[in-house]
Amino acid sequence: MDRNILIEELSQIPVEKQAIEFVERKGIGHPDTIADGLAESVSRALCKMYLDRYDRILHHNTDETQIVGGQSAPRFGGGSILEPAYILLVGRATTNVNGERLPYRTCAMKAAYSYLQRTCKSLDVDWGVVLDCMISQGSADLRGVYETQRKLANDTSFGVGFAPLSETETITLETERYINSRLCQKLPEIGEDVKVMACRNGSKIDLTIAAALVSSKVPDGGHYISVMEQCREEIADFAAGFTDRDLSVYVNTADDHDKGIYYLTVSGLSMENGDDGSVGRGNRANGLITPMRPMSMEASAGKNPVTHVGKLYNLLSGQVAQKICDMAGGDILEVHTRILSQIGKPIDDPQAASANIIYAPGVDRSKYDREAHAIFDEMLQNIDTLTMQIVEGKVTVF
Amino acid sequence: MDRNILIEELSQIPVEKQAIEFVERKGIGHPDTIADGLAESVSRALCKMYLDRYDRILHHNTDETQIVGGQSAPRFGGGSILEPAYILLVGRATTNVNGERLPYRTCAMKAAYSYLQRTCKSLDVDWGVVLDCMISQGSADLRGVYETQRKLANDTSFGVGFAPLSETETITLETERYINSRLCQKLPEIGEDVKVMACRNGSKIDLTIAAALVSSKVPDGGHYISVMEQCREEIADFAAGFTDRDLSVYVNTADDHDKGIYYLTVSGLSMENGDDGSVGRGNRANGLITPMRPMSMEASAGKNPVTHVGKLYNLLSGQVAQKICDMAGGDILEVHTRILSQIGKPIDDPQAASANIIYAPGVDRSKYDREAHAIFDEMLQNIDTLTMQIVEGKVTVF
Amino acid sequence: MDRNILIEELSQIPVEKQAIEFVERKGIGHPDTIADGLAESVSRALCKMYLDRYDRILHHNTDETQIVGGQSAPRFGGGSILEPAYILLVGRATTNVNGERLPYRTCAMKAAYSYLQRTCKSLDVDWGVVLDCMISQGSADLRGVYETQRKLANDTSFGVGFAPLSETETITLETERYINSRLCQKLPEIGEDVKVMACRNGSKIDLTIAAALVSSKVPDGGHYISVMEQCREEIADFAAGFTDRDLSVYVNTADDHDKGIYYLTVSGLSMENGDDGSVGRGNRANGLITPMRPMSMEASAGKNPVTHVGKLYNLLSGQVAQKICDMAGGDILEVHTRILSQIGKPIDDPQAASANIIYAPGVDRSKYDREAHAIFDEMLQNIDTLTMQIVEGKVTVF
Amino acid sequence: MDRNILIEELSQIPVEKQAIEFVERKGIGHPDTIADGLAESVSRALCKMYLDRYDRILHHNTDETQIVGGQSAPRFGGGSILEPAYILLVGRATTNVNGERLPYRTCAMKAAYSYLQRTCKSLDVDWGVVLDCMISQGSADLRGVYETQRKLANDTSFGVGFAPLSETETITLETERYINSRLCQKLPEIGEDVKVMACRNGSKIDLTIAAALVSSKVPDGGHYISVMEQCREEIADFAAGFTDRDLSVYVNTADDHDKGIYYLTVSGLSMENGDDGSVGRGNRANGLITPMRPMSMEASAGKNPVTHVGKLYNLLSGQVAQKICDMAGGDILEVHTRILSQIGKPIDDPQAASANIIYAPGVDRSKYDREAHAIFDEMLQNIDTLTMQIVEGKVTVF
Repeated sequence: MDRNILIEELSQIPVEKQAIEFVERKGIGHPDTIADGLAESVSRALCKMYLDRYDRILHHNTDETQIVGGQSAPRFGGGSILEPAYILLVGRATTNVNGERLPYRTCAMKAAYSYLQRTCKSLDVDWGVVLDCMISQGSADLRGVYETQRKLANDTSFGVGFAPLSETETITLETERYINSRLCQKLPEIGEDVKVMACRNGSKIDLTIAAALVSSKVPDGGHYISVMEQCREEIADFAAGFTDRDLSVYVNTADDHDKGIYYLTVSGLSMENGDDGSVGRGNRANGLITPMRPMSMEASAGKNPVTHVGKLYNLLSGQVAQKICDMAGGDILEVHTRILSQIGKPIDDPQAASANIIYAPGVDRSKYDREAHAIFDEMLQNIDTLTMQIVEGKVTVF
Repeated sequence: MDRNILIEELSQIPVEKQAIEFVERKGIGHPDTIADGLAESVSRALCKMYLDRYDRILHHNTDETQIVGGQSAPRFGGGSILEPAYILLVGRATTNVNGERLPYRTCAMKAAYSYLQRTCKSLDVDWGVVLDCMISQGSADLRGVYETQRKLANDTSFGVGFAPLSETETITLETERYINSRLCQKLPEIGEDVKVMACRNGSKIDLTIAAALVSSKVPDGGHYISVMEQCREEIADFAAGFTDRDLSVYVNTADDHDKGIYYLTVSGLSMENGDDGSVGRGNRANGLITPMRPMSMEASAGKNPVTHVGKLYNLLSGQVAQKICDMAGGDILEVHTRILSQIGKPIDDPQAASANIIYAPGVDRSKYDREAHAIFDEMLQNIDTLTMQIVEGKVTVF
Repeated sequence: MDRNILIEELSQIPVEKQAIEFVERKGIGHPDTIADGLAESVSRALCKMYLDRYDRILHHNTDETQIVGGQSAPRFGGGSILEPAYILLVGRATTNVNGERLPYRTCAMKAAYSYLQRTCKSLDVDWGVVLDCMISQGSADLRGVYETQRKLANDTSFGVGFAPLSETETITLETERYINSRLCQKLPEIGEDVKVMACRNGSKIDLTIAAALVSSKVPDGGHYISVMEQCREEIADFAAGFTDRDLSVYVNTADDHDKGIYYLTVSGLSMENGDDGSVGRGNRANGLITPMRPMSMEASAGKNPVTHVGKLYNLLSGQVAQKICDMAGGDILEVHTRILSQIGKPIDDPQAASANIIYAPGVDRSKYDREAHAIFDEMLQNIDTLTMQIVEGKVTVF
Repeated sequence: MDRNILIEELSQIPVEKQAIEFVERKGIGHPDTIADGLAESVSRALCKMYLDRYDRILHHNTDETQIVGGQSAPRFGGGSILEPAYILLVGRATTNVNGERLPYRTCAMKAAYSYLQRTCKSLDVDWGVVLDCMISQGSADLRGVYETQRKLANDTSFGVGFAPLSETETITLETERYINSRLCQKLPEIGEDVKVMACRNGSKIDLTIAAALVSSKVPDGGHYISVMEQCREEIADFAAGFTDRDLSVYVNTADDHDKGIYYLTVSGLSMENGDDGSVGRGNRANGLITPMRPMSMEASAGKNPVTHVGKLYNLLSGQVAQKICDMAGGDILEVHTRILSQIGKPIDDPQAASANIIYAPGVDRSKYDREAHAIFDEMLQNIDTLTMQIVEGKVTVF
């Protein structure tokens, strides 16, 4: 197959050299990220159910979870959730096959319940949230496109990606992961609802972190302040490992302790008290929000991993860009990739694909063009391996 | 206090002697009874929360649970719930006290979750139902009436009661309890959704029972039939202990095995598959539906046990009637009681109360009039002991 | 056909002669009655849809509407609804026929919307309530029973009826109708949420009426009091036309004007402010709640009018009782009727039917036995005419 | 005030000169855009309510509408909506002020209802959708920040903008507007759910349009095809007015008439049949999705227009970029702007602001630097005029 792949040089200053960078990551407990996580876990559970029963993944898209924030009354040493947050699973699924009706909603409910159990350690999932499900069957036409044997694009859509992550991007991503893995074991007062925003101004990086504390584990304001201080120090140490730039860390800057304003929550989650959340409003497929980078508006979480180009092409674009970078060592400074589908056409044969490359000064691009093309071509050819990586959770999508 | 209590002779043929009797009991797993049970357990939990925090029970009425039946696909040896039933807790509660906001919805959710866990043994409560809660604050005016120190009637309403239960009524009540306690241990195939309907025609009693079997425990039609047969026999033996009348037992008469129609469910509950339920649509406060007896339309389940005359007077009426019967040995054949409140007046001083008594032939009623009056008077005086009996679950209300 | 009909003499004091009577009617704007009205209007609309398309009424039961009260802030001369009441239509319907999918929910929504528009004149239905619908398909088994050509009972159930209405019952019924037709035209301040409770103690009748006023039409407390006074007088005049007994009328007795408590509403409906409502919790099929009369717990509203014995037998029992009374002039003082179905058997051939008759003193009952039997037999034979009367709204069911 | 504004030269190939461009606009009837439109109309209505009552806009954010697609059965010349789409308004509002409770939900419901009435001409809003509202009060802390007199940033967040629109961007935006204004008057068969995707490859522009037709206005397949053809021609003519490039127009490419697949809808909206929608998933504040341009993930629609930097800075960034372009005539080819807030600081004094400018070859940038700075400074100074432009609908945000 002769795929329509274009490799071009990009004459642009790499992000790392630009004056200003803004980067943001909404942590796993942020309402938008919980919505993403639920949507994706539901899709994966449906995939497994379809595979178990029919040896193939049937049509579904569960990329529309809505979280309606609850009401809570945290207080030092205790507090309670007054009105549970309401979580509505929304989307489309194949609900019956040849007359057999499938337990699609029970499957979704179970996946969502388990995801919350695993992810939100201080939340009592049994009665601390209302979990509802309005997933139902999709339009017959779309299912028509889907149910063919060949994997055809479900939409005219595109994916974009880039590599490598800049230093600031890496710090943003890794810091949130650090807080929600090792740091929260050391400081169990920290809840899962963490937001990291980085602003690099020249050679100075400001890392602003909002972290909800779990009220039952914080007996008083003194304890709170000491946790915040320790938190700030640990993060500064951790982040310093990624950069030589001048790095400042700020935690919970909206606090105003004189007025009694602390970022306290009963469950470690701001959705308990008025923060709503929705799929696709937060992190892109690479885990970050990067306003000066190529970004797609597509929500990857919850989309079916077989024919949904909005999901597959965004993930693949990132992987291709990374692989091209890796291949060239330091000769390539930045790669931007794009893939455009055409509805009804095979997904491994896009309407257009391109890689725009910023080379290091003095590099002979002709040396890399063919190789970059080959990488792109091969990864498109093997796009269906991506499907099972997604189903098995080997690829993160938010 | 001089209470307005009237004791009258009733010249009527006692139910036991009438030609025909219809009696029904919806078992604890029937959708209407689950709604009742949820409403009552939520009310009791709120009572305890208010008592713990403020040493008194604050205003609430949670007597409006709606169950929307799900969709299921039971089959011999397995099956699954396709779409979980939706359970909506509805009602009013005191949501804050002197500026303190109370966890009223979490309290209700927890009580409902626990009730389902305890009651529905084959239901996976975590994902097999959607549990939602729209309980919120009531109208300020009604709360005004409530929040006085003295216990005043919340409405102009009445309660009615009778005693003793007829033989047919006793059989109906005890048979359901037997099935849902001892029999279901012997025959674990039997789910909680049991309905008992008795029709006595002269000296012949027909007991028609619908009992949902749990599909995973019934490998095939042969097993089903043998369980049905054993079930029928055990019930016939059990019920025969209550009567000398000619008694026939019919189980799952809507089955049509030739057409493949069996009463199979995944969870032992018909609400899993299209049966809706609602508070106050089933059993009266004495556990029975008795169309030829005095009955109140008030739903007792879920009403507050402090000032809600619809709950208190219905329960008290039954207790008074029973106590008057007991006092007279066989001299009194039947007692009908009624109590009428007046909104805003103390609940221990009703607008009107009456006991209508059917005496055995030849009995001198003057002998019992004073005593009956005294019983009624004393029980009204002590009506507030009923409140804690309800909170502690010592009195059943459905 | 030889129907199993029993005509018996009943030796009992007629209600009219008993010492005490309690009667209640929840008016058309009471939350429970609105729920009934919605359920019935939805059923009738579905009937018409099925008749239009297939010339027969298909299976449905929409007898489970839940109303969750809203929040409002009425004030003299104005006020507003803060949070709309939530109305959930629940039930079962035939959702597709031979592969044709039917607009069952749109049909239900339209019927409910129109019913509210017609019935609740001061409610802005477009945004003053949330109208939701969870009606979906029923269990296949029940539909199996239904879809046969012959009309077979859907359940083992019974209906009960009586006639004539006592004076107090008539007054209760007619007073509410009067208020919601002629009186509210004269006094447009009166909303639809009216509740009438009558208590007859010997020859004295107390009529207690709660009537929500529409706040925008009541500029101040003085106006309120004058409307209440006029309301009381008009009702007293009206009710006096039905009785020679001593009759007292009380209106809005829960008011406490010194404390600023008036029964004011923005929409004329208490559901706007915390009053919940549910089908089958209020008036019986004859429009009344009569605790000392034979009553069925079945909700008639919303049930299908073809095979649902809970609906048909309750309505028919009342009609048969009335017709027997009418036939005998004053010779018959009271008739109680009962009809018992057997699931799967033709509805015109019940398992048992009985009429228990209280004759006037000295009347020769043999004279009427045969005629009563004939009436009962004929009306059972023509029970299917009842179906279309219900569909066309010629029979009221709440 | 000395604002922190940086004007820099950007050395990059302007989008107009790059090889490939992807641009998308989801039309006003697309489910995501309807969600945006509802969210924004609710916010504007709340603003007006607060202004009317308190002369200032109080805290709210209603940027989380969830649309759950319904089920429909369109057919040539007719068809019907089977299950109405469910629309859930979500968000936070100020619910009472100094003890006065506000009609915040009624206000939201009314705004949403009216918006649907105005926007969706073939939808029967009364019963063709379920409109629900879970807007409630926000967290006290955030409200604290809000309720100060000075306008302080509600978050650490950023806005990005660019100007001018490229030719392809202009065509995409204007074509959708043209279809939903003039063209749909000429061809009333066209519904509001239109999606325009443009792909420019060098000097060739492909315009792919999906347009839902209203089934009742399309008697048969022949009519459909002729409307499609006319639609295609009219759009080609219209779009040609914006470009000299080679432009191809494709309409409803997912159709497969041989298999009976047409893009038919009852209401002109795909949400009627399984298409879900959500705020912030579609167009950015400038009305477009432009993956190769700087984009913010913030949903502008529904956010409060007083302190929400996510809304204000995105809008302002675009306006500043445009004004700088306009000022320089053709000397400036492209402007990228960014504004970064700091939570709790005045919104007119951001933490950082920058304009990156691509000059035409040979232009002396020093000539424009001061002027660009002045424009940026002045527009930040007058940022509060933006608030009322938003409230009055003079600025579009999606």
